[in-house]
Amino acid sequence: MEQENTVSPQFQHLMERARNTFWEYLGCEIVEAAADKVVVRLVAQQHHLNLIGIVHGGVTSSMLDNAMGVVLMLARPDDKIVTTNLNVQFVAPMQPGELYVTAEIVHQSRKMLTAIGRVTDAEGRLGTLGTGTFRVI
Amino acid sequence: MEQENTVSPQFQHLMERARNTFWEYLGCEIVEAAADKVVVRLVAQQHHLNLIGIVHGGVTSSMLDNAMGVVLMLARPDDKIVTTNLNVQFVAPMQPGELYVTAEIVHQSRKMLTAIGRVTDAEGRLGTLGTGTFRVI
Amino acid sequence: MEQENTVSPQFQHLMERARNTFWEYLGCEIVEAAADKVVVRLVAQQHHLNLIGIVHGGVTSSMLDNAMGVVLMLARPDDKIVTTNLNVQFVAPMQPGELYVTAEIVHQSRKMLTAIGRVTDAEGRLGTLGTGTFRVI
Amino acid sequence: MEQENTVSPQFQHLMERARNTFWEYLGCEIVEAAADKVVVRLVAQQHHLNLIGIVHGGVTSSMLDNAMGVVLMLARPDDKIVTTNLNVQFVAPMQPGELYVTAEIVHQSRKMLTAIGRVTDAEGRLGTLGTGTFRVI
Repeated sequence: MEQENTVSPQFQHLMERARNTFWEYLGCEIVEAAADKVVVRLVAQQHHLNLIGIVHGGVTSSMLDNAMGVVLMLARPDDKIVTTNLNVQFVAPMQPGELYVTAEIVHQSRKMLTAIGRVTDAEGRLGTLGTGTFRVI
Repeated sequence: MEQENTVSPQFQHLMERARNTFWEYLGCEIVEAAADKVVVRLVAQQHHLNLIGIVHGGVTSSMLDNAMGVVLMLARPDDKIVTTNLNVQFVAPMQPGELYVTAEIVHQSRKMLTAIGRVTDAEGRLGTLGTGTFRVI
Repeated sequence: MEQENTVSPQFQHLMERARNTFWEYLGCEIVEAAADKVVVRLVAQQHHLNLIGIVHGGVTSSMLDNAMGVVLMLARPDDKIVTTNLNVQFVAPMQPGELYVTAEIVHQSRKMLTAIGRVTDAEGRLGTLGTGTFRVI
Repeated sequence: MEQENTVSPQFQHLMERARNTFWEYLGCEIVEAAADKVVVRLVAQQHHLNLIGIVHGGVTSSMLDNAMGVVLMLARPDDKIVTTNLNVQFVAPMQPGELYVTAEIVHQSRKMLTAIGRVTDAEGRLGTLGTGTFRVI
């Protein structure tokens, strides 16, 4: 399901840098990476769950931060970008299995970027919604 | 540094349930757990970092959710509680090493709970601030 | 520009209740009100500005809360709904003049509702983005 | 209850600039303004309420933005500061009458500032909690 046509040199470089980081530890993989939209998949297993047996909010929060980060880094390959604010709404419990996060850029100025992301299950049901503000440093 | 005097049966039970969950996978450990305040430690290593070599925002977000969750579960041992909203402000980059998150309850009603948390480094410098809303289900 | 076809009895009732409330004091007026999308207009004047001469963040925050509230009340006419969390990203400064806020429902469960809203100027440029969580009481 | 001892020339200047802005339209007045903490009062009346007869979320959100703005402007009198993100948790309904918002600085860097604020009633009961991120432009 990798979209080979969308894999740019910048993107390859990003993925190499992701080795041994929290991105890989969490188990994220890119499904789609276009200039305006990125989709990342994670197969939620036992170690991604919380005490009550649903996917941990930190997992979907991390997925959101990751996917938003990628869409912004692809849009601004020469800038160093950090997350300033991440706001996450957990709208429905998510079960183990395939999870997808889709991130899109909402606004860009010279120094600030805003993105939105949605985490859904394999059937497309929304579980978590997030918005993030990012800053060029 | 474990505060043995604060370890209640509820707390023991919580920690047993945390086995094999994201809590353990992330590497969180309880440092202090009182009725009104919980401190959780994580030693940030290479696999907790992001692409630019600082602690991943998803790690500190997860720490916040974990510590807030514990302080609320200790306060409401008979209730099943889920995170509804998590808002995280990343105020300064955090380096690998010891990180501490301190969570406190801000407000409780019958069905909704609100908590605040701060992630600091070993010198007490604030890196991430979060607030969370939780719901009794 | 009022969409007469969308004015239901519930909607009329809402507008009557809005008399003498903060909705009216702020100067909000409904432009469009369908089951899944509400548009509200406010003409920003001197008394809507902040100290540096742009529209006050509290004005666009209030517009977001208002428009989200209307779309949710139309969707759930028999429920009493309160805002639990409002998260607002101010992505660009907004000048005096016509402002529009568009709100849509993102998710509904029995007890919790989540909405998203965007405040734009008359040319459609995004100035403020917000998400809100609401609770049926 | 005005703290005359805390009124600096910067503060006087701020108050003059607040004339005819949303600050005044809303009805905010400074109760206390020190370098690290600002308290603002608003007497909530009919026109500050929402459709269900409690204080409108936009009112307490605006109070938070105002009080955080003042504490930051006093700390950084030579900088022009805008709100980037405002996150508000409505923890309990607030009734008409005296409301107080207390704002404090949580973190400052050269370009970003973070503040926290709490809106209470005359008896000190918390109704709304907010955090804000601000940017020096």
